[in-house]
Amino acid sequence: MGIVVVGTVAFDTVETPFGKGENVLGGSATYFATSASFFSDVSLVAVVGEDFPEEHVAFLRSRDINLDGLQRIAGKTFHWTGKYGYDLNEAQTLDTQLNVLLQFNPELPAAYRDTDVLFLANIDPELQLQVLDQVKQPKLTACDSMNFWISSKPEALKEVMKRVDIVVINEGEARMLTGEANLVRAARQIIALGCKRLVVKRGEYGVLMFTADTVFAAPALPLEEVFDPTGAGDTFAGGFMGYLANTGDFSEEGLRQALVFGSVMASFNVEDFSLNRLKRLSYPEIEQRYRSFKSLTTFRDIEPLA
Amino acid sequence: MGIVVVGTVAFDTVETPFGKGENVLGGSATYFATSASFFSDVSLVAVVGEDFPEEHVAFLRSRDINLDGLQRIAGKTFHWTGKYGYDLNEAQTLDTQLNVLLQFNPELPAAYRDTDVLFLANIDPELQLQVLDQVKQPKLTACDSMNFWISSKPEALKEVMKRVDIVVINEGEARMLTGEANLVRAARQIIALGCKRLVVKRGEYGVLMFTADTVFAAPALPLEEVFDPTGAGDTFAGGFMGYLANTGDFSEEGLRQALVFGSVMASFNVEDFSLNRLKRLSYPEIEQRYRSFKSLTTFRDIEPLA
Repeated sequence: MGIVVVGTVAFDTVETPFGKGENVLGGSATYFATSASFFSDVSLVAVVGEDFPEEHVAFLRSRDINLDGLQRIAGKTFHWTGKYGYDLNEAQTLDTQLNVLLQFNPELPAAYRDTDVLFLANIDPELQLQVLDQVKQPKLTACDSMNFWISSKPEALKEVMKRVDIVVINEGEARMLTGEANLVRAARQIIALGCKRLVVKRGEYGVLMFTADTVFAAPALPLEEVFDPTGAGDTFAGGFMGYLANTGDFSEEGLRQALVFGSVMASFNVEDFSLNRLKRLSYPEIEQRYRSFKSLTTFRDIEPLA
Repeated sequence: MGIVVVGTVAFDTVETPFGKGENVLGGSATYFATSASFFSDVSLVAVVGEDFPEEHVAFLRSRDINLDGLQRIAGKTFHWTGKYGYDLNEAQTLDTQLNVLLQFNPELPAAYRDTDVLFLANIDPELQLQVLDQVKQPKLTACDSMNFWISSKPEALKEVMKRVDIVVINEGEARMLTGEANLVRAARQIIALGCKRLVVKRGEYGVLMFTADTVFAAPALPLEEVFDPTGAGDTFAGGFMGYLANTGDFSEEGLRQALVFGSVMASFNVEDFSLNRLKRLSYPEIEQRYRSFKSLTTFRDIEPLA
């Protein structure tokens, strides 16, 4: 199966206690597509401006990502500027230049509309709905979002969450969306919107995946060197959905395995600025790190007391 | 094997968004001993005042806890008053009446000195050292501590950490003790003090266990009803050490299993105020919840890509 991802391709300027990246390649669709490309065919829908360099296009092509849906229009590419403190858990946004994103009209090329798997990265939920209207019979759909849309367009966002199979958001967003401090109750409310499954990202604490009657917890791998968490969530989603598109196994077991692959991809991404770590990543390294996750979490079955 | 625990027996006044407990039974040794008593023989060393009611003594006796080391002296029992907000992760201390704790002199009854397992709950590290001098040939020793001792008596605390096998502290304390934001590097520094193993408690995010060359992550069970986190850390330590004292298996595998039993016990404790949930807990419930932790965390081994 192949994946279509709709999201942003951007320039990021990021400062962490460990260094600074200026005008580096970023954007939710970029991270997602690059990560997913290790597992599956990926087709991307996004918009960039006239300033977007050929070098980045060439990189995405080198990952075999279909760019027929990458629109280039007059103006400047979306540019995000942010900063992380020592705890690296929350970015402080210093500046957002939406630029061409303001005119983004996610038209799917005809060949994309038959896609089996669709990921709606964080964009205006009204555009996400527009995309959902264009795909024919997807077997698996998922969406991300952010606090900005939760407060500004909650109804459109809830409509998206009603129509997709999986919602992937972070812990704070799940609480904000539901007004519920307890995460289990928040999950129940979000699933009641209509999606079957909720994946809650918790940064360095890992990920929880809820259905109406199951819960799975995958920790993050404790890392000695974390340079830049930018894009970790989208890289996670890319590994998760990419692995699912590869196997086509949407059972609870298949989804758990895919979730760990997503966590593996995120664990690599934070080890360097921008997509630098993914650029030099190989599949054997991914398999090796999957085994590290296994050994990180394995414990014995119950035995009778002595 | 049996366990000796040295710590506090106290009155707590606790307010959470879900209710209030006034002058309820609390204290690190109380939670630890009650939790450990589900798995092993426990002997307690602590001090209470004249106001400590027979009812609480009777409860501890009903758990078969040896109270020869429970000193009763003139004055009032240690009393902690605290409050939790909706996130329930951090207590706000409103008042601390040390009372008889100021005269605590942890003298171990002769029969206690042969103990195989020793847990030094959070008390003055100078008293913890005094206890370490009294035990003969323990097979396993562990300590807890808190931010107050990290800032006021760091040298004595580091001496304790040099002499015990396992340090059990929370995430913020590990960072504060080492001045290191990255938890993997903080763990490395604490293990370098001399203990072989560090257990880092992360509240609702679970627990990490480090040695010089291994790491294990156990998530907390996502719970729909969390009423009062007071004593969760000591209840965790009690289940962890209690299970180890029962099996005598101090291998990595044995320690991982024990850590999950600790997490099981903590997950029960937060479901009600004071020790109320532990008071009505049965061993079959413990086993059932261990299986819930197994199903919470299980995922498939790696398979070749399609």
